[in-house]
Amino acid sequence: MEFTANQIAALIGGNIEGNGDIKVSKLAKIEEATAGSLTFLSHPKYVPYLKTSGASVIIITEGITDEKSTATLIKVKDSRQAFTTLMEAYHKQQFAKTGIEEHTNISPKATLAKDVYIGSFTYIGEHTTIADGARIYPNVYIAENCKIGKNCIIYPGVKVYRDSVIGDNCTLHSGVVIGSDGFGFVPNDENNYRKMPQVGNVVIENNVEIGSNTTIDRATMGSTVIHKGVKLDNLIQIGHNVEIGENTVIAAQSGVAGSTKIGRDCMIGGQVGIVGHLTIGDRVKIAAQSGIGSSVADDSVLQGSPALDHFDYKKAYVIFRRLPELRQKIKELESKIESLTISK
Amino acid sequence: MEFTANQIAALIGGNIEGNGDIKVSKLAKIEEATAGSLTFLSHPKYVPYLKTSGASVIIITEGITDEKSTATLIKVKDSRQAFTTLMEAYHKQQFAKTGIEEHTNISPKATLAKDVYIGSFTYIGEHTTIADGARIYPNVYIAENCKIGKNCIIYPGVKVYRDSVIGDNCTLHSGVVIGSDGFGFVPNDENNYRKMPQVGNVVIENNVEIGSNTTIDRATMGSTVIHKGVKLDNLIQIGHNVEIGENTVIAAQSGVAGSTKIGRDCMIGGQVGIVGHLTIGDRVKIAAQSGIGSSVADDSVLQGSPALDHFDYKKAYVIFRRLPELRQKIKELESKIESLTISK
Amino acid sequence: MEFTANQIAALIGGNIEGNGDIKVSKLAKIEEATAGSLTFLSHPKYVPYLKTSGASVIIITEGITDEKSTATLIKVKDSRQAFTTLMEAYHKQQFAKTGIEEHTNISPKATLAKDVYIGSFTYIGEHTTIADGARIYPNVYIAENCKIGKNCIIYPGVKVYRDSVIGDNCTLHSGVVIGSDGFGFVPNDENNYRKMPQVGNVVIENNVEIGSNTTIDRATMGSTVIHKGVKLDNLIQIGHNVEIGENTVIAAQSGVAGSTKIGRDCMIGGQVGIVGHLTIGDRVKIAAQSGIGSSVADDSVLQGSPALDHFDYKKAYVIFRRLPELRQKIKELESKIESLTISK
Repeated sequence: MEFTANQIAALIGGNIEGNGDIKVSKLAKIEEATAGSLTFLSHPKYVPYLKTSGASVIIITEGITDEKSTATLIKVKDSRQAFTTLMEAYHKQQFAKTGIEEHTNISPKATLAKDVYIGSFTYIGEHTTIADGARIYPNVYIAENCKIGKNCIIYPGVKVYRDSVIGDNCTLHSGVVIGSDGFGFVPNDENNYRKMPQVGNVVIENNVEIGSNTTIDRATMGSTVIHKGVKLDNLIQIGHNVEIGENTVIAAQSGVAGSTKIGRDCMIGGQVGIVGHLTIGDRVKIAAQSGIGSSVADDSVLQGSPALDHFDYKKAYVIFRRLPELRQKIKELESKIESLTISK
Repeated sequence: MEFTANQIAALIGGNIEGNGDIKVSKLAKIEEATAGSLTFLSHPKYVPYLKTSGASVIIITEGITDEKSTATLIKVKDSRQAFTTLMEAYHKQQFAKTGIEEHTNISPKATLAKDVYIGSFTYIGEHTTIADGARIYPNVYIAENCKIGKNCIIYPGVKVYRDSVIGDNCTLHSGVVIGSDGFGFVPNDENNYRKMPQVGNVVIENNVEIGSNTTIDRATMGSTVIHKGVKLDNLIQIGHNVEIGENTVIAAQSGVAGSTKIGRDCMIGGQVGIVGHLTIGDRVKIAAQSGIGSSVADDSVLQGSPALDHFDYKKAYVIFRRLPELRQKIKELESKIESLTISK
Repeated sequence: MEFTANQIAALIGGNIEGNGDIKVSKLAKIEEATAGSLTFLSHPKYVPYLKTSGASVIIITEGITDEKSTATLIKVKDSRQAFTTLMEAYHKQQFAKTGIEEHTNISPKATLAKDVYIGSFTYIGEHTTIADGARIYPNVYIAENCKIGKNCIIYPGVKVYRDSVIGDNCTLHSGVVIGSDGFGFVPNDENNYRKMPQVGNVVIENNVEIGSNTTIDRATMGSTVIHKGVKLDNLIQIGHNVEIGENTVIAAQSGVAGSTKIGRDCMIGGQVGIVGHLTIGDRVKIAAQSGIGSSVADDSVLQGSPALDHFDYKKAYVIFRRLPELRQKIKELESKIESLTISK
């Protein structure tokens, strides 16, 4: 794809400064851009790149600088937002696929909306419905009795077990598993575990994005629920009967054990572990690698394993580093007291 | 599916109290149950729900209470066990599939028992045998020279490398990888690593369940062995030549490095890391997020990274939290001694 | 496959001591070897096994011992290297497959070299090129506009998103995901996150091996780069715009957050977390489960979360274990000073 500066300016409502006919065919960061690239400049600290960047066209926030550039400038109110808008347009081009490819197994009892894409080697079970605009890539498995909402993007290799409900505008990346059995076993007298059948399901609301190889287990009974707007990174584990509140984001490789409820607008770092049957409040922030072993009030900020208030953790950890020094001081105190006692 | 209270009572050997003709079509927790639901009551703390639950039928442990309910009650000796029996029956209904679906690639040199299910887009290599009652879902890959035992359930997207042996009644959830190469590289003088070919295999004994996206590497030589009754949660890493003893359970996202032997009846929490070439005894318990860097005796209970006895860890961690306070005390002691010395 | 001791000796240039016509059909460790097995002896501590091993043939390092054995010995300069050479030969036999199996979807606009293997249920998008000697197993998805280098082995169930570039002699194990979207969301006023389109790609250089279910996200713009010779274990997360230097090895379940640059020849343990936007120097070593929160100089050796120099961490942790004892000492000092003060 190739666009002129004029075409881009029209799309984002900007003013041209320089040659409007120059063409760009790729997107780049300002410090890495070469001829034929489009980039943007929104933060004052990148202004020096205005002179050195090889970009052909730079979308720039008005008023950020008066410096000139050999590149064509497109001046807009918020260059970052404008650039994101452009990237979205570019990105949508990637998803132009429609129709049903060869080598699929779609149950005659499944219901597919008109405008869907179903890739090769994809399996769709009976009584499953796929809503308008959904794009199901190759090698996907969607079991019986599932619902896939409008405009969902299901990347190659996603597996969705029976009875799962996925809202509109959700994105599931490759290798995601939805609705596998929760980890429920009851020991008997000989420690031969009896499996608790997991007869619940998973419900994912609208606008949820789930990263590659993340796993979300079905509920024992009832539902594991991911509320709207939640963003999960790669390789995350969500146990059975967990509930995650609206717009909470969780970074890669974190795990949430069974039946824990997490509030809304939380920000949870990578490799965090949260044990089961807890309640985590709203707007809670948890530092990477923390371990949460008890319920947490709204607006808490936590760090450590087991986690403390993050200030308390940092203060304690500073002294942890200096423990050898501290022990030395105690030894010195001991000998001083010894000599005081003797001299007395 | 719909059942009457009378049908359920007959199935689990219980006594009806109330309307035996009332119908239920779903299972629910007592606190969430609505009309048409079946639930159970086994723990005294849930007795108050007897009056408020919307359930139509409640399986209840005899003698737990004399309270009445508007729901139909089915009295049994152990309502939890009875309910599990019902859930198992319900669950089995899900696995009614048999036969070989279209679009498979099954080697003519593979051996399939009579009563098996092979889903679409599944690949079965030569000299592989699939025993009676095994259910292999779509998009599964089973390489050459493997054995899949009786009544195994292999969920969609499982990958089994060559020479793997899987016992009877095993369940492998979606995205599980069995038999990928162990992480074995030998550095040469230029730090260009030479790959150690991994020519061993993986042996999984009977009644093992393995969670979604868990990976088990093949042995360098010999076998990586998962003994009978082991339960592995999601996203676990098992290195080459590891051995895990009978009925040991491991929670999600834990990892065991190469050649470590873990005993039987161990309980290992989530996100635990165990380094290579160790021996972990029987009945060992390891708290979540612990790091095990040396071998461990039978019956140990461990916590921390590196792990200590869990009591020692807890006692030390309590003081870790109060380190700023401790340092303050030391400072005070210093100045007191200072003044004592001066005043002397 | 069956070989005589004479055939093996010819292959690795060794001298026979004993019956050269004896046949072996499997490889084993010296302590586990049975009749018909080939093994090796390179380390003095294994010399006692020379008498007890059931192996039929033992490749042995010259000069390591004068002991005799009932097994046939093949004497070489470096028995470990010789054995690795043999294992490699054995291993290559496994990859004899060529040609295109039934049930594939290969775009007519893709370019395949002559000597490739493409397994069933594999999808290859348009403008993608597959170089000579590449082996693409079943159930693999390779999107549009990708390059797969010479002699690559892409195991079953790998997913490669559009625009990915993979060098020569790379091995990708099952469940690996290359090029999924980076975790980039910009909060707006209502905390409804706006997705930053991820329009960059992933570039993997030559001789890289990537373990099962590891995920590598595409760059927001530009490239996520894995330099030549890098070895990644299973279940690792590599964020968008990360760069990993030559011959760096990372153990299982570690994660590297977005835009971090890691140097060459680093050794990173399992379950390590590295936050985003850092620079990690060359030859850095990081102990398992460490958390790296700030940039790291060349040749550092680190441990802990947050990580310290590994000696400092070990020294501090030794005292952490003894904190209860330390607190006790402080209490004793307090009462001694108390009594000194009173007695004064």
